[in-house]
Amino acid sequence: MISICLFGAGRIGRIHAANVAARDDVELRYVVDVDQASAAACAAQHGAAVSSVEQALNDHTLDAVIIGSPTDTHADLISRSAQAGKAIFCEKPIDLDIGRVDACLAVVEQCGVPLALGFNRRYDPSFASLKARLDGGSIGKVEMVTITSRDPAPPPAEYAARSGGIFRDMMIHDLDMARWLLPEEPVEVFATASCLVDPAIGAAGDVDTAMVVMRTAGGILCHISNSRRAVYGYDQRIEVFGSGGMLRAENERNDTVQHFSADGTLISRVPDFFIDRYEQAYRRELNDFVDMLTNDTTPAVSGKDGRQALVLADAAQASLERGAIVRL
Amino acid sequence: MISICLFGAGRIGRIHAANVAARDDVELRYVVDVDQASAAACAAQHGAAVSSVEQALNDHTLDAVIIGSPTDTHADLISRSAQAGKAIFCEKPIDLDIGRVDACLAVVEQCGVPLALGFNRRYDPSFASLKARLDGGSIGKVEMVTITSRDPAPPPAEYAARSGGIFRDMMIHDLDMARWLLPEEPVEVFATASCLVDPAIGAAGDVDTAMVVMRTAGGILCHISNSRRAVYGYDQRIEVFGSGGMLRAENERNDTVQHFSADGTLISRVPDFFIDRYEQAYRRELNDFVDMLTNDTTPAVSGKDGRQALVLADAAQASLERGAIVRL
Amino acid sequence: MISICLFGAGRIGRIHAANVAARDDVELRYVVDVDQASAAACAAQHGAAVSSVEQALNDHTLDAVIIGSPTDTHADLISRSAQAGKAIFCEKPIDLDIGRVDACLAVVEQCGVPLALGFNRRYDPSFASLKARLDGGSIGKVEMVTITSRDPAPPPAEYAARSGGIFRDMMIHDLDMARWLLPEEPVEVFATASCLVDPAIGAAGDVDTAMVVMRTAGGILCHISNSRRAVYGYDQRIEVFGSGGMLRAENERNDTVQHFSADGTLISRVPDFFIDRYEQAYRRELNDFVDMLTNDTTPAVSGKDGRQALVLADAAQASLERGAIVRL
Amino acid sequence: MISICLFGAGRIGRIHAANVAARDDVELRYVVDVDQASAAACAAQHGAAVSSVEQALNDHTLDAVIIGSPTDTHADLISRSAQAGKAIFCEKPIDLDIGRVDACLAVVEQCGVPLALGFNRRYDPSFASLKARLDGGSIGKVEMVTITSRDPAPPPAEYAARSGGIFRDMMIHDLDMARWLLPEEPVEVFATASCLVDPAIGAAGDVDTAMVVMRTAGGILCHISNSRRAVYGYDQRIEVFGSGGMLRAENERNDTVQHFSADGTLISRVPDFFIDRYEQAYRRELNDFVDMLTNDTTPAVSGKDGRQALVLADAAQASLERGAIVRL
Repeated sequence: MISICLFGAGRIGRIHAANVAARDDVELRYVVDVDQASAAACAAQHGAAVSSVEQALNDHTLDAVIIGSPTDTHADLISRSAQAGKAIFCEKPIDLDIGRVDACLAVVEQCGVPLALGFNRRYDPSFASLKARLDGGSIGKVEMVTITSRDPAPPPAEYAARSGGIFRDMMIHDLDMARWLLPEEPVEVFATASCLVDPAIGAAGDVDTAMVVMRTAGGILCHISNSRRAVYGYDQRIEVFGSGGMLRAENERNDTVQHFSADGTLISRVPDFFIDRYEQAYRRELNDFVDMLTNDTTPAVSGKDGRQALVLADAAQASLERGAIVRL
Repeated sequence: MISICLFGAGRIGRIHAANVAARDDVELRYVVDVDQASAAACAAQHGAAVSSVEQALNDHTLDAVIIGSPTDTHADLISRSAQAGKAIFCEKPIDLDIGRVDACLAVVEQCGVPLALGFNRRYDPSFASLKARLDGGSIGKVEMVTITSRDPAPPPAEYAARSGGIFRDMMIHDLDMARWLLPEEPVEVFATASCLVDPAIGAAGDVDTAMVVMRTAGGILCHISNSRRAVYGYDQRIEVFGSGGMLRAENERNDTVQHFSADGTLISRVPDFFIDRYEQAYRRELNDFVDMLTNDTTPAVSGKDGRQALVLADAAQASLERGAIVRL
Repeated sequence: MISICLFGAGRIGRIHAANVAARDDVELRYVVDVDQASAAACAAQHGAAVSSVEQALNDHTLDAVIIGSPTDTHADLISRSAQAGKAIFCEKPIDLDIGRVDACLAVVEQCGVPLALGFNRRYDPSFASLKARLDGGSIGKVEMVTITSRDPAPPPAEYAARSGGIFRDMMIHDLDMARWLLPEEPVEVFATASCLVDPAIGAAGDVDTAMVVMRTAGGILCHISNSRRAVYGYDQRIEVFGSGGMLRAENERNDTVQHFSADGTLISRVPDFFIDRYEQAYRRELNDFVDMLTNDTTPAVSGKDGRQALVLADAAQASLERGAIVRL
Repeated sequence: MISICLFGAGRIGRIHAANVAARDDVELRYVVDVDQASAAACAAQHGAAVSSVEQALNDHTLDAVIIGSPTDTHADLISRSAQAGKAIFCEKPIDLDIGRVDACLAVVEQCGVPLALGFNRRYDPSFASLKARLDGGSIGKVEMVTITSRDPAPPPAEYAARSGGIFRDMMIHDLDMARWLLPEEPVEVFATASCLVDPAIGAAGDVDTAMVVMRTAGGILCHISNSRRAVYGYDQRIEVFGSGGMLRAENERNDTVQHFSADGTLISRVPDFFIDRYEQAYRRELNDFVDMLTNDTTPAVSGKDGRQALVLADAAQASLERGAIVRL
């Protein structure tokens, strides 16, 4: 029985807690949150104890931690958990500052604990299926990758202000997808963007509508499109074009019903947001983490993956600011 | 240069005239219609002469006739054309009375002229593609055939009254499709039907909503669904289920546009009616007739095909009237 | 906390057990199975005790039972559970014999306990969504219902032999769907069928390929198509045609990936079988049963629904045997 | 009766000739081609005379010319036709050199003749339908445009060498689409590209795989993806994302057949190349030109449209060469 402490009992934390609870071989031992009420509610629901960071990490029989607290606490919690010898699952990102990320990863490496990053999309059944077929050679050599990612509605402007910007906060997921799908690292990044959705986001110094184009050393091209608003739902698509064909992962639909009327045929909506769309991905991601602990394998998404996605996000931000291509 | 006389310058006749005109190796020589204005308009458009049945058939250099006049003139025109030694293309049906059909076909056989029946759906690109894959063995042995055919709107009740009823007038197309797709003839027919669309159709002694189930000697099952009204357009679908898979021909769409909104995704309408849906089929059908004349091959859809479809339609009508299965 | 005893720890029973375990407000107290090993494994997994029918029903604090044992035990377990005052969830069917069903339902009524039948498809998200739109009037008055249901592979012939036949064993689900979707009861049933998949099924006196057509008093038509084998997966579709349009629930897909190659575009498989396809339906069905217990509401699928579906299945069987329409 | 001279009896020229021939109100009077055999064959097929540029333009009763000859003859033929007072339909591009384009357009303006450019995609039924819905406000304000355009197979390298490069030869169509769909002109262009398909194209100084991102003054973003090879057919898609939704025009399919097998469901191929995909577009384009002549309206696609697309193509080429954004 693997014992786990959850840091952060917010929306994402509770998803992880429920996925832990659904397994018979994992025990949710502690829940830690600065909001005591949230911690208590989550702990009560799954038979765990409310605790503190210090107490939890001092429990020598605790195996692992899941970090779902706010971004600015990640690096510190990772470092402390590593020093306590705990296996770590951390939601993306490690930190918004590449220097802090490097320092944190150095601690992890020194301590020799496994660190798995929560890039949930790698666990989405459709994206994983696309990746498997790609790796199986079904479309030959990859030549172009196109990623579309649009949120249903913009976050509050104050969130945008401290999010690190659209590239580090939102597109980082797509940049990780790009790295996962491309057979080699991007070496050139170009970004262009606008504030079309919410002027308050612009006032906070950020953008809400963005396109990035990247190029690898071998000349493979990648395009990412982001918007902070899509009235039709959470738009999450991938297209990989190769010498021997194309693979597309389309949006899911809420159900399979088609309504034929004089206007045409209406098919069902795409899922509202990540809670719906990535429900299975979160479950599979947690299961993968537990399997890693059980079988002593290496994490599917490593700290280095988290770092490299941030490098690309930083490059995109720099490209936007300079109005020029950034070479890595 | 093949010379052709068109009998009937109505809606269907004009489609055939235009398809003849589009070829460089066929001449539309005469147009015959009891409505002289229609005949004149059609003839003028394509550089043909207005004529009469007698005159046209007396032209010894005329090669062929296309019969697109009202149903009750078909058998007579076929017989006279056959006796004049002309190759014949006739819109379905030969006649609504099986006795008259047999007499007519006897004349055709005696005269030794080729007779091609206008079951246009066999020339629809999607249905023809389905049939080719079926014949190519892509789904193994056929076990079930399902045919859906729904008109966009009911005909005038007076039309229904003299149409021979929904089975002989409308479902006869589906019965021909069934015979074309099934590897053996149906031996049992069961029909059930209602008048749900237009009470005037019921008052005229007909039905407007019908289902037929047929069975072959080898136990293959076939289902046909008809309605005289579909607000979403002309619903024309085929599904063939076999030991090794399933083939479906879905409805066409007016275009490929998808509109994503908060309600879902709206895809375009299906074609309005047969003029739109079977535009290509009519062209291919005419081309096939000309090829038959040019290459001296046998018609793809024979008089016997027309007869057998009527036999099934008669059986369906009898089944409905008796409330019992009809065995052939 | 509602306490439940599970009768039957086979494939379906274990699904229900897991769905019970996933809730915080329900306790799986006992597991009963003639196969003690199965009972023990299931009980251990969810912290329940192995018990016997007698013991479990004698526990006066037990609230409810879930019956997932073999069909021929259902009526007896329902009766005994009713007499013990337990709320009952029973997998379909109550029994294969209408006389025994009536006797059993009489006991249930006398005892005044709630009985919910496990027609899982009513809880399928797509079918439920279709039904909701239908009830919302989106296609006007229902005129035709078409239900396609094909299993991926035939059961062992010995199963077929004691299953009651394809109509009572398999099509009963579709007959319930038909009743659910039709605004009035069918009054005429016609069945035709063959043994095309497995000769051993025929040798056992059953068929494996079947079509049924039904008609209501108001003239609404319904068609059901069944096969015991579909190489492409578990084919589960519904189409409802009405005066104002059409609603279709198409098959689900394992994922949203599309593979574009020189052959065309390959989209993903439909789910393998009911375990995959109806995973959500089983969960929602169980939740509905618990809600019924908690809120003291009437079951969504009643004993009468189970009875009526059997009446239709009996009629279909009789129609097949007599080669004639059966009027109810 | 409008009389027309066709310059160029190659593949495109013959399409225009056939579309002219299909109308009753237009006469194909002359066919001109340096390849006399081609000219003769095309002329014979449609009852036209073989002629020369000089002779044809000297016919004072000739109304219009259609220019489908090689690109390097366009500007000269336009100028001479304009000076002869003929209405002009010219295949894209006017010329590969912006200076020559401007000189040519100055002549056209001076002569006061109408000039229609053959950007066929504007006449594609699906793209035109998308545009109509966009103009109807169905998705609010445009925020992002994504255009995918991939040829089935690369042209011969010698073609690439004198084509002006992928941006001026191929992407110019997409750049025109972008201008057509965007509510304002792009002001920034960024291009990146590779030679991944055919090394001979690279040796000829061109690329075969390209992505462009553009931005308008108002911050609307546009992405275009090109490849000279797509094994699955001619990939032609458009996506417009707006404040109120998204419109997509997907690829057409050769037919509507779906093949369900153990591997999944195979749907039909997309059309092979532009001859198939844009068959209707060519017809509608020609009809629009004739309507313009008949009704004395302005051309839907003007010489200025041709010029502006070239300006964007030049900017893309410059961006690629400089590795930097180009501002217009």
